[in-house]
Amino acid sequence: MFLRSIFTSSPFPVYSKPIITLFLTNRRRFPHLFSPYATVKPQMDAGDASEDTLRGILAEKQASVDLQADIVRKLKAEAAAPVDIEAAIESLKALKMEVSAVAKHLQAIVSSSAGVSGDREAFRQVVVNTLERRLFYIPSFKIYRGVAGLYDYGPPGCAIKSNVLAFWRQHFVLEENMLEVDCPCVTPEVVLKASGHVEKFTDLMVKDEKTGSCYRADHLLKDFCKEKLEKDSTLSSVKVAELKHVLAVLDDLSAEELGAKLKEYDITAPDTKSPLSDPYPFNLMFQTSIGPSGLSPGYMRPETAQGIFVNFKDLYYYNGNRLPFAAAQIGQAFRNEISPRQGLLRVREFTLAEIEHFVDPEDKSHPKFVDVADIEFLMFPRELQMTGESAKPMVIGEAVRKGTVNNETLGYFIGRVYLFLTRLGIDKERLRFRQHLPNEMAHYAADCWDAEIECSYGWIECVGIADRSAYDLRAHTDKSGVPLVAHEKYPEPREVEKLVITPSKKELGLAFKGNQKMVVEALEALNHAEALEIKAALESKGEVEFEVCTLGKSVIIKKNMVSISIEKKKEHQRVFTPSVIEPSFGIGRIIYCLFEHSFYTRPSKSEDEQLNVFRFPPLVAPIKCTVFPLIKSQQFDEVAKVIARSLRSAGISHIIDITGTSIGKRYARTDEIGVPFAITVDSTSSVTIRERDSKEQIRVRIDEVASVVKEVTDGQSTWADIMWRFPTHSASHVDE
Amino acid sequence: MFLRSIFTSSPFPVYSKPIITLFLTNRRRFPHLFSPYATVKPQMDAGDASEDTLRGILAEKQASVDLQADIVRKLKAEAAAPVDIEAAIESLKALKMEVSAVAKHLQAIVSSSAGVSGDREAFRQVVVNTLERRLFYIPSFKIYRGVAGLYDYGPPGCAIKSNVLAFWRQHFVLEENMLEVDCPCVTPEVVLKASGHVEKFTDLMVKDEKTGSCYRADHLLKDFCKEKLEKDSTLSSVKVAELKHVLAVLDDLSAEELGAKLKEYDITAPDTKSPLSDPYPFNLMFQTSIGPSGLSPGYMRPETAQGIFVNFKDLYYYNGNRLPFAAAQIGQAFRNEISPRQGLLRVREFTLAEIEHFVDPEDKSHPKFVDVADIEFLMFPRELQMTGESAKPMVIGEAVRKGTVNNETLGYFIGRVYLFLTRLGIDKERLRFRQHLPNEMAHYAADCWDAEIECSYGWIECVGIADRSAYDLRAHTDKSGVPLVAHEKYPEPREVEKLVITPSKKELGLAFKGNQKMVVEALEALNHAEALEIKAALESKGEVEFEVCTLGKSVIIKKNMVSISIEKKKEHQRVFTPSVIEPSFGIGRIIYCLFEHSFYTRPSKSEDEQLNVFRFPPLVAPIKCTVFPLIKSQQFDEVAKVIARSLRSAGISHIIDITGTSIGKRYARTDEIGVPFAITVDSTSSVTIRERDSKEQIRVRIDEVASVVKEVTDGQSTWADIMWRFPTHSASHVDE
Repeated sequence: MFLRSIFTSSPFPVYSKPIITLFLTNRRRFPHLFSPYATVKPQMDAGDASEDTLRGILAEKQASVDLQADIVRKLKAEAAAPVDIEAAIESLKALKMEVSAVAKHLQAIVSSSAGVSGDREAFRQVVVNTLERRLFYIPSFKIYRGVAGLYDYGPPGCAIKSNVLAFWRQHFVLEENMLEVDCPCVTPEVVLKASGHVEKFTDLMVKDEKTGSCYRADHLLKDFCKEKLEKDSTLSSVKVAELKHVLAVLDDLSAEELGAKLKEYDITAPDTKSPLSDPYPFNLMFQTSIGPSGLSPGYMRPETAQGIFVNFKDLYYYNGNRLPFAAAQIGQAFRNEISPRQGLLRVREFTLAEIEHFVDPEDKSHPKFVDVADIEFLMFPRELQMTGESAKPMVIGEAVRKGTVNNETLGYFIGRVYLFLTRLGIDKERLRFRQHLPNEMAHYAADCWDAEIECSYGWIECVGIADRSAYDLRAHTDKSGVPLVAHEKYPEPREVEKLVITPSKKELGLAFKGNQKMVVEALEALNHAEALEIKAALESKGEVEFEVCTLGKSVIIKKNMVSISIEKKKEHQRVFTPSVIEPSFGIGRIIYCLFEHSFYTRPSKSEDEQLNVFRFPPLVAPIKCTVFPLIKSQQFDEVAKVIARSLRSAGISHIIDITGTSIGKRYARTDEIGVPFAITVDSTSSVTIRERDSKEQIRVRIDEVASVVKEVTDGQSTWADIMWRFPTHSASHVDE
Repeated sequence: MFLRSIFTSSPFPVYSKPIITLFLTNRRRFPHLFSPYATVKPQMDAGDASEDTLRGILAEKQASVDLQADIVRKLKAEAAAPVDIEAAIESLKALKMEVSAVAKHLQAIVSSSAGVSGDREAFRQVVVNTLERRLFYIPSFKIYRGVAGLYDYGPPGCAIKSNVLAFWRQHFVLEENMLEVDCPCVTPEVVLKASGHVEKFTDLMVKDEKTGSCYRADHLLKDFCKEKLEKDSTLSSVKVAELKHVLAVLDDLSAEELGAKLKEYDITAPDTKSPLSDPYPFNLMFQTSIGPSGLSPGYMRPETAQGIFVNFKDLYYYNGNRLPFAAAQIGQAFRNEISPRQGLLRVREFTLAEIEHFVDPEDKSHPKFVDVADIEFLMFPRELQMTGESAKPMVIGEAVRKGTVNNETLGYFIGRVYLFLTRLGIDKERLRFRQHLPNEMAHYAADCWDAEIECSYGWIECVGIADRSAYDLRAHTDKSGVPLVAHEKYPEPREVEKLVITPSKKELGLAFKGNQKMVVEALEALNHAEALEIKAALESKGEVEFEVCTLGKSVIIKKNMVSISIEKKKEHQRVFTPSVIEPSFGIGRIIYCLFEHSFYTRPSKSEDEQLNVFRFPPLVAPIKCTVFPLIKSQQFDEVAKVIARSLRSAGISHIIDITGTSIGKRYARTDEIGVPFAITVDSTSSVTIRERDSKEQIRVRIDEVASVVKEVTDGQSTWADIMWRFPTHSASHVDE
């Protein structure tokens, strides 16, 4: 009964406020490494505005109480007339009652928002119980008490995963003729130094100084602030604002700032209450050693993308030296989380499916953009987030035309991701595309959108779609010395004026010693106009004052220190580093959200219990159909075997259940793992096929069964189409 | 020209002698860990027998020469008649000439067998060049000079891998309703301690004492022996026999024995000639640390099987507590090889596909055995290997009936593996099932067969099919304390006599101190008869002499030290540890052999070059068809697009090539990546479809193209079927 209430309408209230974006310091500077599977963002509490107001009123009333109490004390001290004292006391009592009323109201609001999350947790518990009981997933190494953040997919989960990946290949790789590659997980250090992971792929950690237990510093601070806000109604409005501010900027805090806050709030280790160390960065990669010498450090890759970037040259050649083209990879990635929480959403090993679409930075149009341009879905651009509005339905063609989305290729992939997710069975009302705020994006990124899916944990980043410009290819070009570039041949050679700046390292070295490098770089970075200005000055005066940003001061450049000239050259081709647009899919997160979106309960026939159902579309369903002999009978068993054989040769996954259990129980059992069709053998010539969600049944000849099931599971026909063609089964086999 | 010669007939001579089985010491004791992808066995040299004979003759002749030389010296010393001395010298010369002739003959034989391996290497080089040039695979992290033993699959390789895995799922998982699971690669130490990997998954290593470079000790010894045998024709027959013996027992040598041999032969570091350290075991698992504390060691799994074993209890429950059932897993496995050799065959990270079929040890029949019983293929049972014969065609049903293969379930999987490999395109003439010799098998294994595929490296283990009895489940039961057992309920409770042996640990401890444990274990291990004997002795004499094997001596057991009784109990069910039959597939090895078996060359039309072709069956082919507009024309390009769209919606992978290159060149280009069908657009109403190997062309209406291609690629029809139905194209578009 309780459960039904959360399914009757939308399972969660719809919030109008944007979520607060919570990125770690490093995640902001280095967002690629975390997107799209890194940060689960908590939903802001509902009723925030009235909570704030109430806290204000409460503070005012409390001040009045304090004032009135003073008055009472003063009157007593002055031995004023008893009638005056009495009146003052009455007034104080009235004020206190007001305070208490407001405090109660506030408490109610705070706990009602906690109640919402309580409902969510109850819902999640039912889903997760079903998932674990039916082996969709299993905590890994359970008989050895498991390892946090590691999960196995059991048979139905594994089948769903493999269906999702097969559809991903079909929808992206095949549809776009992408070049799929498959690279190892073990990765030498040099690659991840170039990508920045060795230096920056960190979370801030604190240690219990007595037991050595490790905690994420931001988690402890967040938990503290949230608990204070939820449970302490006596907080002053100033304090409330402060705690909320801390939550908002949590992930922008440096190690020092985080440490200072932990000290200020006297936060100790959750279990032992021991003091904590200062926060320090912990690298999230699993480290290992390649080969026997111990001299070649390696890591388990934290993402699959780098395997594609380092192969750019070969892939470009494979594609006939033509742009654009996309490469794709499906594979395991690893993150040694400090303290994994949130079940399947934050794990230490997971499957990523990544696409790197390489494109000329001067032409990001997409020939197939028209195919998606008219699709409308929830978008949550930067402006709406900043003004506190909520996500709005937008047509993707419009969004690109207006410049909300940076370019066609990015827009194309957003549209394709929308189609992918909704065809899997993700509820489009609980799917939105959220644009990164400027502080979430790396300086080099042109634009970035996350496909976020709402589940009981809040809005979850499941796919990141980022225009990362030329960053990655440049990083590997610099580190490896192999130019990862593309060429565009001009139809005619072009004469170009080329600015040639040649700093004399010798003279600059003599003049600036240790600062020489910065001066050289600043000179080389001059643009056309600046260079000509300096050239003119040097020619006329022999020296010039020159500001070097990286030194924070100006230096004097003399004529012998740099030569600046304009040369005419014939160019036959343009050489450039391609931009890359990267849709990156956290497969496990998508699957978990799909579990929640597909789950519902309905009463049993006797109405004394709730039966669980997963409404997976046939495309995703772990098993496409079951075969049930209605009663124990050799004849029916034989028919079941014949049908099973035809299903097998049609490549349709199925199970036979010949237990004598009531047909209703057998339906319920397979509804719970989301099998869309049940074939009941009740005669030797024809059988019934029951659809899971409608519970409708049709009667089909035995020799037609496999082809009918194939039609509906392949998506050639819908159940409705099929219903037209076959007689519905009048004396239906009843559900439990 | 040179190349053609190696393709004209069977690419390699057929050898009649069995290979020598080369297993490392640990591999023999612990074979599961290495099978099926561990050891690449070298092919014995052809002409062994005559080589031996010649060496014998050579030694004899040499002895005669020495003898005759003595005679000459003696005659000279004795100042014999010059005519006698002359005659003796003539005789010596003749003998020397004989020696030289035999030596030459021997040298010719040795180098001809080296020549065979030279041909193989040349063949391999052509295949590998093609594979690398067309990006079937790429040495990983190439721009950073790569990492030995790590490879990427590029686009065609990746597509083939994904087709092979899809077919594996279809052929095994779907066909047998297996329970597929997906477990993490990161594995905590406790699991791999239970499985034995932490202790025993090692290779023996030596270090260059100056540079610290590491080598596999057995590799160095093997290289030394082989080089000696190949290049040194002056070896005495005794020495030859010794070196051959070393090669034969190489992998049975302990660290001490290996070290002694390295010293005896003065073997030094290959590059620097520096002295080597003593051999010591190096664990082949990539080690890492789980979580931030550094206190939880973990490893990257060396096989996927353990993930299934630890889940046995849940999977058995999932299967309705019924046996038999099989679980399956596809995933990455990792082995930190000391010095990887042999390209794709010995790598540090690879994909395994493993099946664990759990069965009642008292009933290993298989209901579907009849489906495979009549299949005939090359089998190489123990007896043939020991008597020096070669593999022979056998009918699997017969092999099981005669007891050559231990049981039906094992036989069933051998048959299914045969079907799997040959359907992929493995040449059945170069596929054999080799039974493990007793010294290769673990003591607990009931029987074990490897599917070996012959390629340029020799016969390669690609699939291992082992009856591992109850070993793995017992190991995890012992370590975890969770009973991984099955139950068989009796129709009626049975009364059984149970032997109850209760050693008194206290008394035994007082009597035997540190040896107490061994005595207790020996007592508990008594069988029925022994126990009754001891019971009788204790009752009559009060004490008994009792041999404890593990102590290597007898002890006196007194009456108060153990109680032995027979109790009658009612049992309702039999509780037992299931046996497991494990087919385990090294996917990368299968794919590499498939590359070699599918590759051939044929002359270009002008006969001035050899064109490369991979004859992949459509099932495996990386791309099913290409679409070529015959000439550059907007009309034809439009038709090509229409066809591409219909192929896409039929789910058929394809590429369009609209370059103006000659149609022959375009055919050659796609033959080289094994595309089976080429569609040439030469009109706006119909097109030609060309089959890769026959180069035959048929004419098909544009709206029929996709369905025709689907028919032949799905395997519903063969090309021959299709040829009947459509007109052959008379004015064929010519090949290059």
